[in-house]
Amino acid sequence: MFTGLCAFPLTPVTGNDIDEAGFRKILSRLTTARVDSLGILGSTGSYAYLTREQRKRVALLARELAGDIPIMVCVGAVSTDAILRLTEDAQQAGADALLLPAVSYQSLRDDDVFSLFETVNRHTSLPICVYDNPGTTHFTFSDELHGRLSSLNGVGSVKIPGVPDTAQAAAERVRNLRSQLKPGVTIGISGDAFAGLGLNAGCEIWYSVCAGLFPEAAKQITQAAAMKDHAQVTALVACLEPLWALYRKHGGSIRVMAAAAGVLGLTDVDCLPRPLQPLSAGDIAEIASVITLLDLK
Amino acid sequence: MFTGLCAFPLTPVTGNDIDEAGFRKILSRLTTARVDSLGILGSTGSYAYLTREQRKRVALLARELAGDIPIMVCVGAVSTDAILRLTEDAQQAGADALLLPAVSYQSLRDDDVFSLFETVNRHTSLPICVYDNPGTTHFTFSDELHGRLSSLNGVGSVKIPGVPDTAQAAAERVRNLRSQLKPGVTIGISGDAFAGLGLNAGCEIWYSVCAGLFPEAAKQITQAAAMKDHAQVTALVACLEPLWALYRKHGGSIRVMAAAAGVLGLTDVDCLPRPLQPLSAGDIAEIASVITLLDLK
Repeated sequence: MFTGLCAFPLTPVTGNDIDEAGFRKILSRLTTARVDSLGILGSTGSYAYLTREQRKRVALLARELAGDIPIMVCVGAVSTDAILRLTEDAQQAGADALLLPAVSYQSLRDDDVFSLFETVNRHTSLPICVYDNPGTTHFTFSDELHGRLSSLNGVGSVKIPGVPDTAQAAAERVRNLRSQLKPGVTIGISGDAFAGLGLNAGCEIWYSVCAGLFPEAAKQITQAAAMKDHAQVTALVACLEPLWALYRKHGGSIRVMAAAAGVLGLTDVDCLPRPLQPLSAGDIAEIASVITLLDLK
Repeated sequence: MFTGLCAFPLTPVTGNDIDEAGFRKILSRLTTARVDSLGILGSTGSYAYLTREQRKRVALLARELAGDIPIMVCVGAVSTDAILRLTEDAQQAGADALLLPAVSYQSLRDDDVFSLFETVNRHTSLPICVYDNPGTTHFTFSDELHGRLSSLNGVGSVKIPGVPDTAQAAAERVRNLRSQLKPGVTIGISGDAFAGLGLNAGCEIWYSVCAGLFPEAAKQITQAAAMKDHAQVTALVACLEPLWALYRKHGGSIRVMAAAAGVLGLTDVDCLPRPLQPLSAGDIAEIASVITLLDLK
């Protein structure tokens, strides 16, 4: 479950509800490309903006569309009670794994987070991927905490937010983290621009936003990584630099991917949950030109 | 509505639900002390951890208990749709005003936030207090954005997170903000340790966590502020320094206040919503000694 390429699709929202037709079109690209797994309702999948009922509906729909491709469903929420309800829903919907972030409102301590994971682990038989995403959750995991969490029997992977920006430092980062983890727990790179550094540093999986819309481009990268062709991994990730530049320009990937889904005709040009506003027409035109330039698929 | 002392009580949570008996006891202290208004379900009131139904129940209970004291209800959430549902609930529960933060998951832009406030303002006739709390929401309001928001007809107050730590710098901060605001919109200080600096700098209201449990101590301060007795305000706030030191030690006020409510016998010693864990027995004993030392009421 926790190796290879995990694609994180958008959950398009139109008006006040899920754009199910758009979601079907997006997932169809991913199942056709045969990504290794699907990360449903991740950050770019707008879990934080949807109701319990909407999240259940998306998980069920993803299960139906994914066929034999495993799906991981994010059960993030501020409160433990909400997380347990979402865990129950994800399990009932047929999820193969859970993605669990440490979403904070009041600042969290390591013991709060450990106890949260322990509680969820006790309530489910599904494997859990620890979702380390300080940019949105404002909680920073220490490697020591990752080590403690990996001792829980359900924890199977850690999704890290990026690595330092040289090959040597990235390798050291991954090595240090791995030295804390229970053997067998995989490390996954996210933050698409870091995919090459992360995979070459030994991450076993790419938790990829890019793959959520452009699975063919992302698959070439994880296939090169599987062949241990570091130079090819680096070159392919570098080719996508204009896409990473758009992420940086727009403060993250979600507004870029939402616009791109519109450009591809999969969704309305405005498919973000409010209060997130869509990008301007000029920015969308720039995104369209990058898609054409890179021949993104 | 937006002047004087606004007390922000805890919403005690025991097991998986609201401790209504504890909430009644806490509110009884505030109504007996005749605070000027109540800030229900603020950050210390754990709005971010409760379901829509729980929040509705707390708002209704507060309305019942508050008598003729005006209540402001926080309607914060990540998604605009959720905020509109909470707004409807707060209005139906008999709230006199809404407290609206800019809770972020994906990072927000000024236009997202303006549009959010505009939407809520259009959906309600209740006055709105803009809740500027970057520590929990991770959105930073510019004074220019506060100015734009204050042009909305419902906006009546801005709750700021603190002021710089000298009288002169605090006065300049409040003057700069006020120069952007529509006349009549009040500025309220929060971050209890800044209450003296803020009130002396011209803030018309103290949005006070301290008052949510120790209304008499807080009232002395706003009464001195109403008499323009700056020296007395400064002295009274300085007296409470051991309490502010506890807030700093425990990363904010909520764990301290939750422990204090237990010490006072109003709630269980553990009345925090999970994943927040209660303080240790040693820390609780220290809090008890500060309550005794300061003769807090």
